[in-house]
Formats: sequence, structure tokens, C-alpha cells
Amino acid sequence: MDFRSDNVTGAHPKVLEALVAANRESVSSYGEDPISARVTRKLSEIFETDCTVFPVATGSAANALALATMTPPWGAIFCHEVSHVAVDECGAPEFFTGGAKLVNLGGKGGKIEAGEIEARGGAGKGVVHHVQPASVSITQATEFGTVYRQDEIAAIGAACKRHGLRYHMDGARFANALVTLNRSPADLTWRAGIEALSFGATKNGALGVEAVVLFDKTMAAEFELRRKRAGHLFSKMRFLSAQLEAYLEGDLWLANARHANAMAKRLADGLARLPGSKLENEVEANEIFVRLPEAAVAGLEHEGFKFYRWDGAQFLRLVTAWNTEVQAVDAFLAAAKRLLAANAA
Amino acid sequence: MDFRSDNVTGAHPKVLEALVAANRESVSSYGEDPISARVTRKLSEIFETDCTVFPVATGSAANALALATMTPPWGAIFCHEVSHVAVDECGAPEFFTGGAKLVNLGGKGGKIEAGEIEARGGAGKGVVHHVQPASVSITQATEFGTVYRQDEIAAIGAACKRHGLRYHMDGARFANALVTLNRSPADLTWRAGIEALSFGATKNGALGVEAVVLFDKTMAAEFELRRKRAGHLFSKMRFLSAQLEAYLEGDLWLANARHANAMAKRLADGLARLPGSKLENEVEANEIFVRLPEAAVAGLEHEGFKFYRWDGAQFLRLVTAWNTEVQAVDAFLAAAKRLLAANAA
Amino acid sequence: MDFRSDNVTGAHPKVLEALVAANRESVSSYGEDPISARVTRKLSEIFETDCTVFPVATGSAANALALATMTPPWGAIFCHEVSHVAVDECGAPEFFTGGAKLVNLGGKGGKIEAGEIEARGGAGKGVVHHVQPASVSITQATEFGTVYRQDEIAAIGAACKRHGLRYHMDGARFANALVTLNRSPADLTWRAGIEALSFGATKNGALGVEAVVLFDKTMAAEFELRRKRAGHLFSKMRFLSAQLEAYLEGDLWLANARHANAMAKRLADGLARLPGSKLENEVEANEIFVRLPEAAVAGLEHEGFKFYRWDGAQFLRLVTAWNTEVQAVDAFLAAAKRLLAANAA
Amino acid sequence: MDFRSDNVTGAHPKVLEALVAANRESVSSYGEDPISARVTRKLSEIFETDCTVFPVATGSAANALALATMTPPWGAIFCHEVSHVAVDECGAPEFFTGGAKLVNLGGKGGKIEAGEIEARGGAGKGVVHHVQPASVSITQATEFGTVYRQDEIAAIGAACKRHGLRYHMDGARFANALVTLNRSPADLTWRAGIEALSFGATKNGALGVEAVVLFDKTMAAEFELRRKRAGHLFSKMRFLSAQLEAYLEGDLWLANARHANAMAKRLADGLARLPGSKLENEVEANEIFVRLPEAAVAGLEHEGFKFYRWDGAQFLRLVTAWNTEVQAVDAFLAAAKRLLAANAA
Repeated sequence: MDFRSDNVTGAHPKVLEALVAANRESVSSYGEDPISARVTRKLSEIFETDCTVFPVATGSAANALALATMTPPWGAIFCHEVSHVAVDECGAPEFFTGGAKLVNLGGKGGKIEAGEIEARGGAGKGVVHHVQPASVSITQATEFGTVYRQDEIAAIGAACKRHGLRYHMDGARFANALVTLNRSPADLTWRAGIEALSFGATKNGALGVEAVVLFDKTMAAEFELRRKRAGHLFSKMRFLSAQLEAYLEGDLWLANARHANAMAKRLADGLARLPGSKLENEVEANEIFVRLPEAAVAGLEHEGFKFYRWDGAQFLRLVTAWNTEVQAVDAFLAAAKRLLAANAA
Repeated sequence: MDFRSDNVTGAHPKVLEALVAANRESVSSYGEDPISARVTRKLSEIFETDCTVFPVATGSAANALALATMTPPWGAIFCHEVSHVAVDECGAPEFFTGGAKLVNLGGKGGKIEAGEIEARGGAGKGVVHHVQPASVSITQATEFGTVYRQDEIAAIGAACKRHGLRYHMDGARFANALVTLNRSPADLTWRAGIEALSFGATKNGALGVEAVVLFDKTMAAEFELRRKRAGHLFSKMRFLSAQLEAYLEGDLWLANARHANAMAKRLADGLARLPGSKLENEVEANEIFVRLPEAAVAGLEHEGFKFYRWDGAQFLRLVTAWNTEVQAVDAFLAAAKRLLAANAA
Repeated sequence: MDFRSDNVTGAHPKVLEALVAANRESVSSYGEDPISARVTRKLSEIFETDCTVFPVATGSAANALALATMTPPWGAIFCHEVSHVAVDECGAPEFFTGGAKLVNLGGKGGKIEAGEIEARGGAGKGVVHHVQPASVSITQATEFGTVYRQDEIAAIGAACKRHGLRYHMDGARFANALVTLNRSPADLTWRAGIEALSFGATKNGALGVEAVVLFDKTMAAEFELRRKRAGHLFSKMRFLSAQLEAYLEGDLWLANARHANAMAKRLADGLARLPGSKLENEVEANEIFVRLPEAAVAGLEHEGFKFYRWDGAQFLRLVTAWNTEVQAVDAFLAAAKRLLAANAA
Repeated sequence: MDFRSDNVTGAHPKVLEALVAANRESVSSYGEDPISARVTRKLSEIFETDCTVFPVATGSAANALALATMTPPWGAIFCHEVSHVAVDECGAPEFFTGGAKLVNLGGKGGKIEAGEIEARGGAGKGVVHHVQPASVSITQATEFGTVYRQDEIAAIGAACKRHGLRYHMDGARFANALVTLNRSPADLTWRAGIEALSFGATKNGALGVEAVVLFDKTMAAEFELRRKRAGHLFSKMRFLSAQLEAYLEGDLWLANARHANAMAKRLADGLARLPGSKLENEVEANEIFVRLPEAAVAGLEHEGFKFYRWDGAQFLRLVTAWNTEVQAVDAFLAAAKRLLAANAA
């Protein structure tokens, strides 16, 4: 009953089976294997466009490599102040770009607003004293478990276009957003202006793989060199690609995300009914932020439930995943109900 | 019958089994899992000292992170001119260090000599116009399939100590060297002055994992931050650690290396007996460098044997691995014999 | 009648005379000349401590080199959101540090507050996901023409000490602050915890020189290498040092700053008396920020007065300098008065 | 009687007069002044093409900024193994490029050969494991006091073009080469393929200024940002430009170089006549490399002559400059003659 993160989970059995299946005979290294080729084709189908695909092993690598390809060292990257790239990567974007500046923007529910990009996207352009607006990175789903609507993505995309900014999506939880929105992957990415996507799989059932999907193929040659130079080119690439293939096969990724989201909804709905609990943000993916009295929080911890206290004592982050069990959710809700009642008494 | 590299192989079945076994329940992310702790203990036993262990997924990451922790941006890293860090990592050491300079040294059989470090290790120290001697990196086994003897390692180590240089070993094929030398891992590393080791597993039976072993633990805190910042900290770390655990369990790593080396010896001995073939370098690990007439090389290629033409047309690199079959070696030898005879006729 | 900046001025005649005087015979290059040695001694006297002095040619170089010596690539530098290092150096601190993160703080009048450093100075320490608090940079006088009091500097210094942070002062206008505060240079720097000072001279009468003054001499060796590596080590160093010597000789620097500040006060006092003008910030050094109606601003521009429109249309920045003439100030005030009256009518 | 370097000299009086003359009234900062504009026009005339000119204060800055604009972080820069960029800049090119690799080439007299660029200029292109050939930097005059002929420059230029490499000239002693070759500046630079020139002035009569001359103007926008970001944009730019203007005015630069070269020739010719002295390299500019017996070297030092012992005990580097006096040369020769005779006796 571990709600700390979707990365405390293992891998989906089908992903492991794919690894075993991939472990046959010798194949060319560094991505010249047939599985890697099939993954590129499959993602091109899914996104309805001929895209370039680079598997890497971590989300930080995917984001930092993509942003470095899109941003010169003197560039500004606009992102939300709670975004993973800004807060949780120990400065990886700064390292990979050679010292670009992340400009933190506010915005409700972890989402930046097109108006901000409109207003700031041209600031200081051509003035050598200032870093130069270069790119925008949004997180889908956001760190707060909300999702950008297609029109929101597209509005930011239009602002990027107007100001000549590159446009990146950190999709560590892209699947969770996708199944909520009921729109096509293409609509939510390149048709809305996205040029590079960090397509997450690790949190949603893989062992450790993300695909950088480049919709603008002119960036591919540079990306490849950056990936190698950063130690992120796997010699036995088939084992990254096999994970992705299984993840996409039969829409496993969507099924996994639907399950995680459903568990989050069940948890959120249950909490919403409990007096004394207060939900923060819309629950649109697989993360719930909730405030509970300290006695209840401590009680839950004491009973063995695991979760993070966010930004302060009584504000919890609960994350569901592809393998969260209904019983775990219900057990949490029952315990919370009991503890809240005792606290109110 | 693929002799291109030991990285065209898959993983040993036991390594895959370990992944499956590790795929149970939720565990803490980022290395706080029990498997990772066990791997550190196991490597501490193997090296007979309390060391710090950081699993990463690629050899380039292991080397570049270690060297960056050992070398300031204005530092000089002494290495052999054919070493992986100098030639095959697209400048990863330069990237990770923030622009240190690799000083390429010559030396027979891919080995640098202690005398070179003695002579150059203090050059320009304190003179701001010059990069500052900072570290030495040796490759064990070397790119040419030779191995450093313990006294050679220790002599370089003594020179490092005298000049205040850090000392790193790229052990992508450490196991292959170890089984040749019949000395303890400790003797061949920290007792000879090595402070950080890139302990390879990928080429020798894993899917994709190397352990950076720090014998000088004062580097650990910085290393951890560098690893994260480079996108090389796995959230589901258990899947790297599980590979390492299986790799070490029951001395699988040594068995694998012994097999690869035996196959290399069989291949080398066979080639040595063939008139018209000329072996280069001692074959002390799992790589063979051999010169053959073009007709023979072309013939081998035509018959489906795979290998690299090194540095020019008729100079072949043949690599054996943990799973190379005797039949493949013998088939290669038979074909070579036949083709050489035809050519001589 | 140019109030755009104190860097539109030329150099004080005595500084030029010193250049001419320094232009005699051959001397050792790269700072091994007698003038450079005298400057170090002189600054050690002025600061009442044995400090290390490195002349460089620009303020950006002084700041970026100092911060890079104080901050690892994964470090956080706390600074004010309007500070020069954050806004006006095109990312120089990020470049020189290898990608550290500037954390922008608010604070009235361009001054950060000790409480902020207390609160944030330890955040995330040892957690690899986050950049690590490393240093604080304050600007004296600030970008808004205010000055930190000694107790304010010392309070931030105490917070730095508590959290193990390095402490830097950007003193591009240090002289202007000093003459306002009537405290010793030592009291306002190292006695209050400052470990490195960018001691400005260019804006206050030199051609182009700043001295990086290190109160913590353990940083000197690294600083020297960084300076060279950044192309900021002058071969004919005597010509930087000669500027500094003349600048310090007979307290020219203090006289220049007193004049600039007096002119600013005269201008501010005059503006304060004009209905329709609204001063922003205390005028404690040589910068005035004032709001005027657009008609008046346009009128002043039309009459040939030069200044910057700050952050928007009717918000002016006026800077006085070591050579600002009383007549220029009075002419500006007279014009403003006339234009404001016309506008009010 | 100081022959250590041409940077132990002061500035030519006319350069200082120009500084004094430039020190009038307020002018726009950061290069928006009329003197800077005139310098660009003047250099465009001299080079018979519309070029972009960026003054910086040091040769290392000029070289590193130019190379960084011409070379991606994963690029290889081909240069001579004794070149200033390779040996004497503490890794500045690596720092400014973000970790590019300098590939050291041999070549007689400090000159690289076109054949080397032909042979290596395409090596590894598109192979992600290797750094990518990106640029070539030659030094004119070389570190050994020799000069490239126009056809040599052009042959390298042709090889660059064939391989898509950028082409840079470190012209710290460009004037000295030019007056030797008796060809136009255009012939020796852009007409031979050079795209960026570090046009030296410091060593030849300025206080501290070099001009980066970009013949390919498409690099200008990036260069400007890099210069600012590196702290090399002077606020009071007029004082750099004024030095350049005086340096070019009335062909002062050529007269200075002619004098320095003539003194070198006098010194070399004199030494050539002395039994026991052995000149190394052609003396084609203002540097002489000569071997003398230790007794003679020690004697010269004892008599107060200053010079560097190069690469070992009895190998001297002697450098003449724009202000070297005939008497100094003759005194050196007389002393050498006397000491050699005594030694031979």
C-alpha cells in the first residue's frame, strides 16, 4: 500500500516477457537492431506522422537531451515553477545545455498559460545583455496531476511560433493525460505545435525507458551526438526498445494508464466524501493532493500507508499506478475515514 | 557467428531471471532498495574493502562521471591514445568535466607506461597558462586486448601519488583481465592505487549495467549529484542492481570471462598456425587483432562472418564473449584456413 | 546631458595619466609587475586585511569568476531578481559555473533579506534531486540605487555561515555605497561575512577595470586558473593595475563617488519637489528611479536629455556619475518642471 | 634588454594618445560609439571586404570565442601541437566550446599541413562514437616564428571546404607575418578560405586589444552573445576601439611589425655567424629559437639579458618587438660572441 510514486512499482509482466524474448542471438548494437526499428514505426503510426525516436533510460535524460537540442547555452527555457525540469533534476537542463536559464512561470494547477509566453517570449531578443528566449517546456500530465487541454497546448504552441521558440513536452505521464483527454496523440502534440516529446514509459509499467520523439526531424543528428556524449546511448539497445515495444503492443500503455487514473479517481472521490479532508487541484491523472489533519496523517503512516508529505506537514501527495489494487485504495479510504472520525470526535 | 563486439550479445539467462525475481512489490526508488544495498556489500567483499558503489547503465556514463569527479575543468587527464575515453565516447569526458583535456599517450599494446606519468605528471603545475595535471585513466583489459600486470598498475599508481593525480580504471572488461592475471580484485585496483573503477558488466553478460566503485569514499557525495544531474540515476534502480547481483552471484562474472577468454585463445592459437595470418598484440583477454590478405577477409565476410575492419582494410578485430560457441570459433578457423590456402595458391 | 548610465562616461584624467606613466620600459607580464603588487598592498590596507586581488576588465567577468569559484555546477546561487548577475549578464554565471542555478529572490528596493536566506539556505541539502544551496550574491549599491546597511549585510552573512553558503558582493558601485554609509570597507565586507568582492572601478572613473578581492585566500589558486581559462588574464596587466592604483590614490574613488551621489541627491531632491513626479526607492547612491507623465518624458527626450525608460513607458532611470555637472542636473530639473507644468495645465 | 616576449613591452605612444583623445564626453556604451564604427570600416577597407569586427581585450578571448562560434561541443578542432590554443590557454577553447576536443597535429616549424586536414577532416563524420571534425585553427605567425605562405593557407582552406570545416586563424602576430609575406591581408585570409581571424594588436603596440574579424558574417549574432556571456563585452568599448584605430592609422601596425621583424633578422643573422650557436626554424617573423652551450646561456642570464629557456635547458626563445632597440640586439650579440668564444677556448 505504497502511494509514494508510480516509480516504486515494478514492470508489467508483458514488458519482462519482451525482454526475455529479445534476448536471443546477436544483433547489431547501438540501436541498429530490428526491435528499435519497429518501435520507431509503431510510434510513427501512433502519432500519425513520420517521427524520429530515441530511447533513453530516464526521464531526466529525455528532458535534458531534448531541451539541450532546442536551446543554445544563452537561451531561456520557459517552464512552470513546479516542473520536474525546474525542481527535480539537480540542474540537468543547465548541465546539458551548457548553462541555459530556466525561467520559472506560475500558473494554476501546475500549468503555464499561453498569455505568459505571449508576453515574455520576445523579451530581450537580440539584446546581448539578456538570455535569449529559446524554448518552452510543458509537463503533461503536470506535477499536480492536472492535464493541459488541447486548446491550451495549441495556444502555447501558437505563442511559441510567433516568437520563434522551440516547444517541448515532458510526457513522463503522457499516457495518463491522453486517456483522460480522449484525443489523439497527434492532436495533443505536433498538431498543437509540440516539436519534441519525452514519451514516458517507466512510471507506467516499464523497467526504465523513455522515448524522445522528435516531430521536427532536423534535430535528430544533433540529438544523436548529444545522447552518445552524455553516456545515454545503450550498446544493447534492444533491451530498451523491447520494453517500449511491449508497452505499446495491444495498447498496454493505455490500459495501464486507464487503470492508474481510475484508481486515482476512486481515491479522490472517496476522499472528497470525507469531512475533514480537502482535495487540492483537479484529479485528472494519477496524482492526488489532499490536506488532512495531522492526527489522520500520522495515523495513516502508523498503519503502514506510504505517501509523501508535500511542501509541508499535512499536505499529502498520493500517486496511483498501473498496478494499484482496488483493495489498497479502499483500505486507505477506510483508514482515513476512521481516523478522521476519531479526530473530529 | 558475430565477432564484432561483446556487446552484440544478449544477457546471461541468470541475469534475466534476476530481473524477473526483482519485479515484485513496491520498493523505494533511486537506489534505496534492498538489492542495491546487497550489491554494495557484495562488491565490498569482493574487493575486500568498504567501497561505495553506484550502478549506471553504460560504460561511457561510468567513465565520464568518475573522471568528472576526479578532474577539475582545467585539469589534464592522462590516458592512452586508443582508449575508449579518448576515442569512442564522442567527448563525454570533456562534457562531464566541463572541458578538461585528455592528454593522449602512446605505449605498446594499448598500455600507458609509468615513466610517462612520472615525466609529465607534474608538468605545468601551478602555471596558469597550462591545464593542470589532474588524473590518469587506464583501461583494463585494454582496447587491444592486452592486460596490465599488477606491478604495472602499481607503478602508475605510485607516479600518481607522487604528483597528486587521481587514478581511474576503465574496467569495461575488468573480468576478462582478472581471470587472466589470477590476482585478487583488490590487488589489481585499490592496493595498486586505483581510486575509482568502472566495473563493467554489460559486455560480459548483463543487459546494461556498470558499477562505479569508489575506493576513495570522499568522492561519493559529489558523484551522486553528478549522476543525478546527468540523468543517470534510475528511479527503478532495483533493475540495475538485480543485474549486478546475478552477475556476481556464484562468480558468474568470472565464469563468463573465463569462457570468453578461452574462446579468444582458441581463436588466436588457430590463427597463429595459419600461414598468411599475422596476429597483432598479445591475446590476453577476449580480443584478437589479426592481419589477413584482402581475399581472405572478403571471403570471410562473404561467408557471413561478422567482425570489424580496424583502422584499415585487412586488419581485423575479433571479439569473443561469454556466449561464443566453440563451433563458431572453429568454423571461423576452418574458413580462414581454406581461404588463406586458396589465396596462397 | 546623458543620464543613461555611469558607463557612458570616460575615465578620470588621473587614471589616464597613470596609464601614460605605466607605459615605461619592459615589465613582467601577467601580473608579475610592480604596479600590480602595489595595488594588492593598497587594497589590503584599505580593507585592513591581507587579501588577494585579481584585476579583470569587466564587471561581468568579476562576478562570474567569483561565483564560479564559490559554486559547484550543481549549486544554487541566491540573488535578487533584479540583480545584474540574474538579468544583465546573458547567463555569464551559468556559463562560468558550468550550469549552476540562480535562484531569484524578491525584496524591497532591490535588497534580499536575511530571512530568505535563513529559510531557503538549507533546502534540499543532500537530496540529489535538487540543486544544492551554495552561495549568495548581493549587490552594493543595488540595481535600484539603494544600499545595504552593515547589519543587513551581516545578517545575511550569519545566515550564510549557518547554512555553509559562500557569500559574494557585486560591488560595481561599492564606492557609492561606501560613502553613503560612512563605515569602513572592512565593516561592510569581510567583517560582515563577505568572502569575495567584485570591487568596481569602471563606472566610477576608470577605463575598464574591476578588482576581485578575495578575503578567503583559499580560493585564490582556483580563481587564477579560472581567470586565465576565461581569457581574462591580461598579458600587459600593468595597464589594469595602473588604473586601479590611480583610482585608489588620494582617495580618488571616494571623491568620485561622493560627487556622483551628491548629484543624484540634488536631482532627486529637485524631482521630489515637482508635482506630477513620483520617486521610487530611496536614493542612496547614484541612481534615481522616477515616474513622470508621458508628455514630460517625451518632452525631455525631445530636448536632448538621455536616460532609460525602465520596465515600461514612464518609469525613468537616471544615473549620475563622477563627472556629472551641476548644470546638467539643474537643466534637467528646469526642463522637467516646465514640462510638468505644461502637462498639468 | 628583455627578449622574453613581445608582451613585456608597453604601448606605442600613439596608442596612448588615442586613449586620451577618446576620453571626451559621454558616448554610448558597449560598442555603439563612433570610434568602434570607424574601426570596423577601417578593417573592412584593409581586408577589402565588408567584415564584422569585435574588439576583445586578450588573445585567448579572441581565439576561444571565435572557436566556440565555429565548433559545437562535440566537435574536433584541428590545430598544431605547439599552438597557443592547444598549450597556452589553460583549456580556454574547451571551456568556451563546452568541451570540444583539440586534435593536435605535428608539422615542421609549427605549421600544420593541408595533407593532414585532407586525411583527417572527414574521419568519423556522422559516427556518434567519435567527436565530429568541425574546424581548423592555424597560427600566423606560428609559435616558432615561421609564417604560412598564401598557398599553404589556401591549401588548408581547400581541405576545410571539402570536409565542411570552419577555418580560423590565430593572428596574434598577424602583422609580423604580413610584412614578411608582402601579400595583401585579403589574400592571406578570406581569399584563402579563412572565416574568422584573431587580429592581434597587444603584442605589437597596443595596451590590450585584439579584434575578432569575421569574414563570414552569419556568425556575428552568436558571437556577440558569446562575447557578452563570457564577460568580454566592454561597457566603455571606445577604449578598446581607440587602441585599434591608432594601431591601424597611418599603418602604424605595419611599421611596428617591420621593426620587430628587422630586429629579429639582425639578431638571427648575428647568431648564425657565431660558431657554437645553432638556429632552429626559419626566422620569418619576430621570434628566434637558438641553441647555445649552457655556459653561454648562463652567462647571458648573468649579464642581465632576459629570455625564456624553451622546452629544456639550452634552447632559447628570443622575441623582438615594436620597440626593440638596435643597441639591445647588438649588445646581446656581442655578449653571446664573447661567451661562446670563452666557452670554446
